[in-house]
Amino acid sequence: MGKTILPDARVMPRFAGLCTFCRYPRLEDVAPEQSPVDWAIYGVPFDGGVTYRPGARFGPRAIREASQYVKRYHVEHGVDVCDTLSIADAGDAPISPYSIPETIEAHRNFAREIGNAQSTRLLAVGGDHSIAYTNIQVAWERFGSPKKGLALIHFDSHLDTVDSVWGEKHGHASVFRRAIEDGIVTPDRMLSIGVKGPLNSGDDLKFAAANGVRVLSPDEFRREGVKAAADFLRREGGEPVYLTFDIDVVDPAFAPGTGTPSIGGFTSGEVLAALRLFKGANLVGADVVEVLPDRDVAGITSLLAAHVIFEILALDAARR
Amino acid sequence: MGKTILPDARVMPRFAGLCTFCRYPRLEDVAPEQSPVDWAIYGVPFDGGVTYRPGARFGPRAIREASQYVKRYHVEHGVDVCDTLSIADAGDAPISPYSIPETIEAHRNFAREIGNAQSTRLLAVGGDHSIAYTNIQVAWERFGSPKKGLALIHFDSHLDTVDSVWGEKHGHASVFRRAIEDGIVTPDRMLSIGVKGPLNSGDDLKFAAANGVRVLSPDEFRREGVKAAADFLRREGGEPVYLTFDIDVVDPAFAPGTGTPSIGGFTSGEVLAALRLFKGANLVGADVVEVLPDRDVAGITSLLAAHVIFEILALDAARR
Amino acid sequence: MGKTILPDARVMPRFAGLCTFCRYPRLEDVAPEQSPVDWAIYGVPFDGGVTYRPGARFGPRAIREASQYVKRYHVEHGVDVCDTLSIADAGDAPISPYSIPETIEAHRNFAREIGNAQSTRLLAVGGDHSIAYTNIQVAWERFGSPKKGLALIHFDSHLDTVDSVWGEKHGHASVFRRAIEDGIVTPDRMLSIGVKGPLNSGDDLKFAAANGVRVLSPDEFRREGVKAAADFLRREGGEPVYLTFDIDVVDPAFAPGTGTPSIGGFTSGEVLAALRLFKGANLVGADVVEVLPDRDVAGITSLLAAHVIFEILALDAARR
Amino acid sequence: MGKTILPDARVMPRFAGLCTFCRYPRLEDVAPEQSPVDWAIYGVPFDGGVTYRPGARFGPRAIREASQYVKRYHVEHGVDVCDTLSIADAGDAPISPYSIPETIEAHRNFAREIGNAQSTRLLAVGGDHSIAYTNIQVAWERFGSPKKGLALIHFDSHLDTVDSVWGEKHGHASVFRRAIEDGIVTPDRMLSIGVKGPLNSGDDLKFAAANGVRVLSPDEFRREGVKAAADFLRREGGEPVYLTFDIDVVDPAFAPGTGTPSIGGFTSGEVLAALRLFKGANLVGADVVEVLPDRDVAGITSLLAAHVIFEILALDAARR
Amino acid sequence: MGKTILPDARVMPRFAGLCTFCRYPRLEDVAPEQSPVDWAIYGVPFDGGVTYRPGARFGPRAIREASQYVKRYHVEHGVDVCDTLSIADAGDAPISPYSIPETIEAHRNFAREIGNAQSTRLLAVGGDHSIAYTNIQVAWERFGSPKKGLALIHFDSHLDTVDSVWGEKHGHASVFRRAIEDGIVTPDRMLSIGVKGPLNSGDDLKFAAANGVRVLSPDEFRREGVKAAADFLRREGGEPVYLTFDIDVVDPAFAPGTGTPSIGGFTSGEVLAALRLFKGANLVGADVVEVLPDRDVAGITSLLAAHVIFEILALDAARR
Amino acid sequence: MGKTILPDARVMPRFAGLCTFCRYPRLEDVAPEQSPVDWAIYGVPFDGGVTYRPGARFGPRAIREASQYVKRYHVEHGVDVCDTLSIADAGDAPISPYSIPETIEAHRNFAREIGNAQSTRLLAVGGDHSIAYTNIQVAWERFGSPKKGLALIHFDSHLDTVDSVWGEKHGHASVFRRAIEDGIVTPDRMLSIGVKGPLNSGDDLKFAAANGVRVLSPDEFRREGVKAAADFLRREGGEPVYLTFDIDVVDPAFAPGTGTPSIGGFTSGEVLAALRLFKGANLVGADVVEVLPDRDVAGITSLLAAHVIFEILALDAARR
Repeated sequence: MGKTILPDARVMPRFAGLCTFCRYPRLEDVAPEQSPVDWAIYGVPFDGGVTYRPGARFGPRAIREASQYVKRYHVEHGVDVCDTLSIADAGDAPISPYSIPETIEAHRNFAREIGNAQSTRLLAVGGDHSIAYTNIQVAWERFGSPKKGLALIHFDSHLDTVDSVWGEKHGHASVFRRAIEDGIVTPDRMLSIGVKGPLNSGDDLKFAAANGVRVLSPDEFRREGVKAAADFLRREGGEPVYLTFDIDVVDPAFAPGTGTPSIGGFTSGEVLAALRLFKGANLVGADVVEVLPDRDVAGITSLLAAHVIFEILALDAARR
Repeated sequence: MGKTILPDARVMPRFAGLCTFCRYPRLEDVAPEQSPVDWAIYGVPFDGGVTYRPGARFGPRAIREASQYVKRYHVEHGVDVCDTLSIADAGDAPISPYSIPETIEAHRNFAREIGNAQSTRLLAVGGDHSIAYTNIQVAWERFGSPKKGLALIHFDSHLDTVDSVWGEKHGHASVFRRAIEDGIVTPDRMLSIGVKGPLNSGDDLKFAAANGVRVLSPDEFRREGVKAAADFLRREGGEPVYLTFDIDVVDPAFAPGTGTPSIGGFTSGEVLAALRLFKGANLVGADVVEVLPDRDVAGITSLLAAHVIFEILALDAARR
Repeated sequence: MGKTILPDARVMPRFAGLCTFCRYPRLEDVAPEQSPVDWAIYGVPFDGGVTYRPGARFGPRAIREASQYVKRYHVEHGVDVCDTLSIADAGDAPISPYSIPETIEAHRNFAREIGNAQSTRLLAVGGDHSIAYTNIQVAWERFGSPKKGLALIHFDSHLDTVDSVWGEKHGHASVFRRAIEDGIVTPDRMLSIGVKGPLNSGDDLKFAAANGVRVLSPDEFRREGVKAAADFLRREGGEPVYLTFDIDVVDPAFAPGTGTPSIGGFTSGEVLAALRLFKGANLVGADVVEVLPDRDVAGITSLLAAHVIFEILALDAARR
Repeated sequence: MGKTILPDARVMPRFAGLCTFCRYPRLEDVAPEQSPVDWAIYGVPFDGGVTYRPGARFGPRAIREASQYVKRYHVEHGVDVCDTLSIADAGDAPISPYSIPETIEAHRNFAREIGNAQSTRLLAVGGDHSIAYTNIQVAWERFGSPKKGLALIHFDSHLDTVDSVWGEKHGHASVFRRAIEDGIVTPDRMLSIGVKGPLNSGDDLKFAAANGVRVLSPDEFRREGVKAAADFLRREGGEPVYLTFDIDVVDPAFAPGTGTPSIGGFTSGEVLAALRLFKGANLVGADVVEVLPDRDVAGITSLLAAHVIFEILALDAARR
Repeated sequence: MGKTILPDARVMPRFAGLCTFCRYPRLEDVAPEQSPVDWAIYGVPFDGGVTYRPGARFGPRAIREASQYVKRYHVEHGVDVCDTLSIADAGDAPISPYSIPETIEAHRNFAREIGNAQSTRLLAVGGDHSIAYTNIQVAWERFGSPKKGLALIHFDSHLDTVDSVWGEKHGHASVFRRAIEDGIVTPDRMLSIGVKGPLNSGDDLKFAAANGVRVLSPDEFRREGVKAAADFLRREGGEPVYLTFDIDVVDPAFAPGTGTPSIGGFTSGEVLAALRLFKGANLVGADVVEVLPDRDVAGITSLLAAHVIFEILALDAARR
Repeated sequence: MGKTILPDARVMPRFAGLCTFCRYPRLEDVAPEQSPVDWAIYGVPFDGGVTYRPGARFGPRAIREASQYVKRYHVEHGVDVCDTLSIADAGDAPISPYSIPETIEAHRNFAREIGNAQSTRLLAVGGDHSIAYTNIQVAWERFGSPKKGLALIHFDSHLDTVDSVWGEKHGHASVFRRAIEDGIVTPDRMLSIGVKGPLNSGDDLKFAAANGVRVLSPDEFRREGVKAAADFLRREGGEPVYLTFDIDVVDPAFAPGTGTPSIGGFTSGEVLAALRLFKGANLVGADVVEVLPDRDVAGITSLLAAHVIFEILALDAARR
């Protein structure tokens, strides 16, 4: 079992020092002694996939900064994440700001090289949701089976299964359409939580229904979420699961800093509680995306994103 | 059945082009072919009726901008609003910034001329709440009966039934006192949702009680709202109903951009759900008021207001 | 029974005049005629006790400004606070910005002199939470018993029972550890509401458990809060109770302006309702702390704090 | 020679205590011992005269707060203002938010009663520029001659000599037109500094030219200002002079918090230097107007306004 | 001579109505009666060419809103722009958010169709600087000569003559490199004003020197600008001149809302004065770019951009 | 001659990667190969020395972030800083947030250990101005003479020579009083640029005069600065010089994010030009202090501070 060494807050207060995610060490600093880490967190500062407001390229920087105040002991799970897991910050993926295909390739090459391909799980921090595709793909390569896609826990206000926008098939609205088509996600093992309207068309929900994706609006999740999560865990058992978290699933009051805010979302408390329901899932990869710092206020969106990262890590720590 | 033609987002993304409410066409552009529209939305950039913080005159401009991201299909009602209704932006009413009486007159003359007096319903966007009086009056002229006032669904943190403030009887705190006195609203058909304290006096609630106005605080609405809405709908049947929505009914976390924010209000999700309860009402007019952009953050108040407009239109679309 | 005379809003609107808390008179202006007042509110502009982000020294100024819109009649309790209680603003305590011990001494000397030591209750407005120690101490001196500490209602995201930070034993994270050790608070009469993780260590909750402090997380309070409050009231009867309110118990969406924001907190509506549960408690002192105006947006944190002050006063007014 | 007693910053730091202008005492607190004061500063929280963006009613409150950091010794004039002058904060004038005429009357009655009508000079803090009319009138009553108007030093981006807007003759764009017509300002003794375009019409400058008002654009003032000020001082000698300062004379970069910002204005350094040129003028009254806090950033506009107040007082202190 | 009819501010105040640039009519509304207009202004909401911070796609919307307060009479030139020129808002160009080449093509097709190709001059409002290429090209097609490029007045902190960035040759850093290579701008007729360091390399200035581009830093322009402008005007006579204005030429204090702010820039007053020096130039096209509203404060950047648009139009009005 | 290797912007754009000052390498990463570096930059996140508004502890973090856009080639000096100097980011000094003396000791121990004591020059980034004392002391230990203090170039709105405030002799208002008393700065070799009023007392300037400190207000520097800098350089020759830069020397329009903003300061262009005048000075240490990110807007204060750091380094690069 790994261990993550944090700076001593007695000599280096939380407002001091270079900012890594949650003050975890840089991967290059720990690799020699602690390799392979259990989880590597890395940024993907790319927002070339958006359909409305750009700026999420500054997400990793802002979340690193806000995450300095994230502590290590998870009360509800009763686990010290840093005692349980070895975690490191792998820096940012190289990206190509003008090109989605080149970004996918550079990102994929980078992700494949992080840590140990048999055991290091990757948590990608966006950037817009288009960056999830590559991280899912690499998680699938590392932990999945060639014969089936990963199961997917999907927090989002939007389904992101539009075929294409402005001719682009890998933008942030199409990421799960592609992941399903390419077989790296299995649609009837996909649970979308927090999806809401208004939509461009009534047809938007038909792709999900036709493919067996389970979609729960915020109100549906409030009513059926506990059971839905239990069903998911029972079905998946120890199968590899990927978790993707679009910050816009939370109401704009809690997450103003995002590009396509959606009115009527979860509170932050609801979303943390929802994440905790998935204790037991075998998370093999994750992402937290769509934080847009220029629209944030008092850093609350970035701080929330930092805590979502912590909750994801705590899910895995609680399982071990 | 009407139809509303929106710009093609493939050539004119939602961040492009002149801003009309929800990208609906200008009334002057559609009138020749599509007259009369079912709903005309117009702004009333007047804040001369406030008792505390002014600035709501910039509400229509900010809401038009934020509304560019409002889509057309309502999931819960299962209706495409633009397929069902013909809707247009009628521009802004002329107002007289220094004079409430002159504003009322100019506003009324403008409103009476919009669309077709027998069939076009008016949705006024404030501006402060004082502007509701005139829109209610014109709705009553168009759809009401000389013998009785309209029924009223009233979302607000404040009752707005103060007799006068600083000698003024048509300020934003007096609008429903006047509407009741003048017979255009019937008090025992009025349902006030979200009213809360502290108040200037314990007498403030007596006018409501004495006149049969039903008042539900946020907590009362959480407990009794579903039934109260059903009772309202059963009682009113197809009778003409007006809906007035003061954005301060929502908590300042969700709507910081307003002039008299009231702590402890609804969440945005609660308020959207509350609106949806009134499916079936024969809405003959509506207003959304008290958005004050200079206090907004990241445009979340305006975005919420834009979605409230959409919910109101969807209520009517769902009924048809 | 006292009375509090407010400025006449007909000649002095709420946006006019020098700002005292809730427009209550200055203590020096009312003392001759109305002494002793029931409650004196005073600021403690000190933030030298923080472990992360400073700036709460500007809390009293910002809360005074925001409180101009607080009205006098409490709907749920059915009481006019100003008719029931005599209240005054006692100004700010002298503090020593560079020294916690000197601040404690200056603050204590100031607090001891406010109003009448037998009957005037003190409501201190921070500043950071470290300032609560002194106000508790003076409340205990005035209303407590030498043999036992006060009962404590504690709203906070953090327990604030760390022994010391950076060698300092009177910082904002240690205030209740000191109060318990010094016998001015009795731990098994202490109820901490809203505490949440992540924490630095699993040991953090052991001090509370070992000393009989009852700790309720937000979710626990949602389930058990009504009963917990009733138990508290039954146990304490008319015994002297102190109430301490750290604004960070509320989610950052509702209170962004604070130094150690904690994700997943109460809504403002929940926290007002929680306060109202303690109707009947014999409040002998209180504080509202940790408002940091430089991180606030649209003044919503200060406005919430001002309403918390009002709720505290209303609890006492309702009891009389 | 008067004296102004400030709070001792050793016990009451500049971030502590109730906010009066520059920490000067309240007039009601000093009147018994020190009456009559040389200068009384008071707020006029009225913005009902604006033609564009309202909100200046919050100007006095924000300027009081920002002014806490204004010190007492003026380096360039070599004078300690508080040693030289007795100054007090007279609170805010009563105003009637819905009515310009009622506001003028209430304001006038209030102003006439402040201090000693033979010796106390009044500095009014807006509010919008419409409030200047009344303060000029009372200065003229106190120190002027029935036979001629006051001389006027006018800092502004706009001439404010429009006859009427929307039928109103006492709005903020008409104040000097009225003052000239009513004989309380003599136009050929009026010097307007910082006026700039674009204008609604080329005719706008003709009223000034026809009446002998000297108008200097920012560039003209940079070239000719030293001489123009000297000419003004030479001509006026000890005659009574009024100084009116609209914060929008400064560029929006330095004063974003104003209602009709004008691009290309002075820097703050230029405007302070310009004020200092008028050393020797017999200032009998002054105003500082059009600060709109909701558009301010980091309080820089209010802080500038507070220093303009100090510069005006220092001009009089330097003369004595 | 054309005329531009503005809304009557007596019935439609500047804070009311749909926002077109400077309240000029929509091109589609005036074309029938007034075609061809002298100038058509249009937005290009594209920011896919940036090398650092995106968001300028929202520039046209924000500038339209801020421009509502731009008046019509230019004091220094002594000309009423609306009496002299017919001007219209042509809406926004269609763009392809994911593709620079497709955007260039769609933009070019749109621009070529605006107004009358022989007489309507185009003023494009960005968007990032990459959009200038197309507008220059169309200006050259309309007014230039096949044998030589246009003369160019270039306000910018950056030369924008980098060959390519991340493999892209039409990004915002390469626009004038391309324009020169493609012969639509003649480098020795190009005057770059406000260029400053630090730079990536000392080589960056060599391209300019080698090609005869005249480059003036802010300090050089302060010393030599009057003469440089006079030289430019003398050399060009009535030859067609294009003016491109990157808002980052102004210091971030005056224009915080931009993507690559450059410390030490002009003040707004300096830049307006600089523009006025070019009175007499035969402007055949222009652009104002790089306004990024999400970083703006109190709208001052957009307001400045709106006045730059007005100054450009006034230059042409003054020439006629 | 040293070299500083920056990340390749083709694979790691300026918005990507962990933030070090100006993207310079971490000292721990380069020490093995490149030791000793010419300059080490480090943060001192301490604001316990302020007399008004705290928050500068977040300065190093914000400046690191803003500095990602600082390029390497200095145009005016014609020097590539990274080709000329080896520079590294040494991280943050350990500090003791509750204690000035403990902070001084921890800071001093840290600074003494950075790089090579004979050749590495230290640039400290505040934090408040109190942190300068220690960095001056270490610079003096490394490069000064036991017999005399360093020469000092001091950019500041305040003299910072108050003997003590609230009993504290090492607060941010006393730093140069201490440095002079302790002999590490020689007062008649000290040049204070940008000092301005108002002051607490006329006595404030007497200490400077009595000790031979040369003090230039902004206006004096505009007139005499070029000569004063030349005199300074001539007198000092190659003697060791320390440069201390308080960001509040710049006007609040350019640097709103600071704790004691001073109206009427330099523009950013003026201050960069002023720094460049000192080309030739043998800078042996420097600091940039008093950036308070919570009051900043759009990061312009931090961006300015980052460029001041670059200018300081460029002065040394230009000398070599």
